[in-house]
Amino acid sequence: MKLLGIDIMGGDFAPREAVLGAMLALDSLPLDTRLLLIGDSATAHSIITDHGGDVSRFDYHHTTQVITMAENATRAFQQKPDSSIAAGFQLLADKRIHAFASAGNTGAMMVGAMLTVKNIPGLLRPAISSVLPKEDGSVGILLDVGINADCKPEMLVQFGILGSELARHVYSIANPRVGLMNLGEEEEKGNLLAKETHQLLKQSADLNFIGNVEGRDLFNDMADVIVCDGFTGNVILKQAESFYSLVQKRNVKDEYFERFNYENYGGTPILGINGNAIIAHGISKATAIKNMIMLASEVADANLCEKIKHVLSHSVPQ
Amino acid sequence: MKLLGIDIMGGDFAPREAVLGAMLALDSLPLDTRLLLIGDSATAHSIITDHGGDVSRFDYHHTTQVITMAENATRAFQQKPDSSIAAGFQLLADKRIHAFASAGNTGAMMVGAMLTVKNIPGLLRPAISSVLPKEDGSVGILLDVGINADCKPEMLVQFGILGSELARHVYSIANPRVGLMNLGEEEEKGNLLAKETHQLLKQSADLNFIGNVEGRDLFNDMADVIVCDGFTGNVILKQAESFYSLVQKRNVKDEYFERFNYENYGGTPILGINGNAIIAHGISKATAIKNMIMLASEVADANLCEKIKHVLSHSVPQ
Repeated sequence: MKLLGIDIMGGDFAPREAVLGAMLALDSLPLDTRLLLIGDSATAHSIITDHGGDVSRFDYHHTTQVITMAENATRAFQQKPDSSIAAGFQLLADKRIHAFASAGNTGAMMVGAMLTVKNIPGLLRPAISSVLPKEDGSVGILLDVGINADCKPEMLVQFGILGSELARHVYSIANPRVGLMNLGEEEEKGNLLAKETHQLLKQSADLNFIGNVEGRDLFNDMADVIVCDGFTGNVILKQAESFYSLVQKRNVKDEYFERFNYENYGGTPILGINGNAIIAHGISKATAIKNMIMLASEVADANLCEKIKHVLSHSVPQ
Repeated sequence: MKLLGIDIMGGDFAPREAVLGAMLALDSLPLDTRLLLIGDSATAHSIITDHGGDVSRFDYHHTTQVITMAENATRAFQQKPDSSIAAGFQLLADKRIHAFASAGNTGAMMVGAMLTVKNIPGLLRPAISSVLPKEDGSVGILLDVGINADCKPEMLVQFGILGSELARHVYSIANPRVGLMNLGEEEEKGNLLAKETHQLLKQSADLNFIGNVEGRDLFNDMADVIVCDGFTGNVILKQAESFYSLVQKRNVKDEYFERFNYENYGGTPILGINGNAIIAHGISKATAIKNMIMLASEVADANLCEKIKHVLSHSVPQ
């Protein structure tokens, strides 16, 4: 039996959309998977009942506090031990759930991860990723997309490992090709970070490094995993989101561009921590929450954090 | 009388497309403007004649050498003094032409600028820009887009000045709003470069700084000029180009997305040098070359380099 912890108080449209998303997910999850709804249980019950659901299909962990989207992450996490985020990470640390997923305050999720399950030994910094819809129907992984604004070359090499494990075990990409985001193909091109990172990636025995990629290669078949600092990744991600929004505003109907809808992807695992934690976009509605839960299920099935721990413990120090 | 020097040997499709572009431009230019075709004069004559043109409508500066697109820029510029690029910059330095435009080797153009007309006194580094098509029909300016991979905060402040002058005098944007590309709106967000730059921009009396912008704000009405390091700008530019190419591949017909076609914009001035020099995309065909020449004409009319020199000489040192 697998138990996934779901924060029903996190996100702009919580608890309603979070609970509705959990109801949607339940119909698609394997039979051996149950959902533990973390948050106000009475509210969860009434939302489920109001929408014709069966409250007994879920498990509940009642909490009394809520970390809001705008709150200072560190202070909120520490001052609200009975918040859904704090409770979720405690359950994860106690191994009472196989994964914890939330669309709540991303900063508080990161703080929660650091203070409870903590980084995998040897990891410099965790990362978060984004799924890139490829022209050929496949997907790629971009990381980091925002939690590490300033990076060292060694961090980007580890992002390559994190992204490769995610690609391999969750997106079923065998031997993922790792590309370094850069401003030119040639090895000697780049800013200081990219030039140093290129040399480390070339020497790395843990990765299938294919060289530099450029902004034009995000959606083609050049690489399966693209690494960059979190500043660059965040700009890329938001630019791609804005294109999707322009495509919608212009009323363009196209199945490929529809794959840019973040709702399809359910967010990202926090990569590199001792536990399977998933964060989703704060604006997630039921469909996005459902996909967050499906991702949590896949990450838990793969036991992604253990896979990453295994590779990091064997990776050649540089 | 205004004379614009056009490199007819530069670009992937030179000399043919360069000469055809010059022929197209001539029909749209003001009557007081003549084009000096720099390159192999006999070839220019035969292309013009073959296409029913009148060779006497142009002026010619014959050169015997060509810097190819892939050549090492510094070596090529120095070893080929009778190349079209070297000749063009010499004519510009001697003030025999009002602007020099080329779709040739960008590196050689930068080297040529540095070795002949040189940087404006007080400028840390020149920059190149890209035009952002806005949803509301207007345009914005993004810089730097690739020649300064590593930047200091003071450089980004100057990019704000360069971009504002370009916006004001070439794109007729009064009091251009300058935004800093960042990963969040809040002042304290960002990597080290963005955080330091934000503080300098806030204090700058020379700019209409409106704060941070994000990847999602490139095509909305938030800012007229967006400054970033050349690494980030290059990734943004190429990602936008790839979206345009995806829109074309998906056969989407939309007048807004058509504005992402680089051919419409004719390239960028090299901003911050003692002369009006324009560089265009190496893949430019006749239409793009025509627009490069139109841009050169506007930059020369505005005497952009003098405007920039004036502002820089009055800008408050930080």
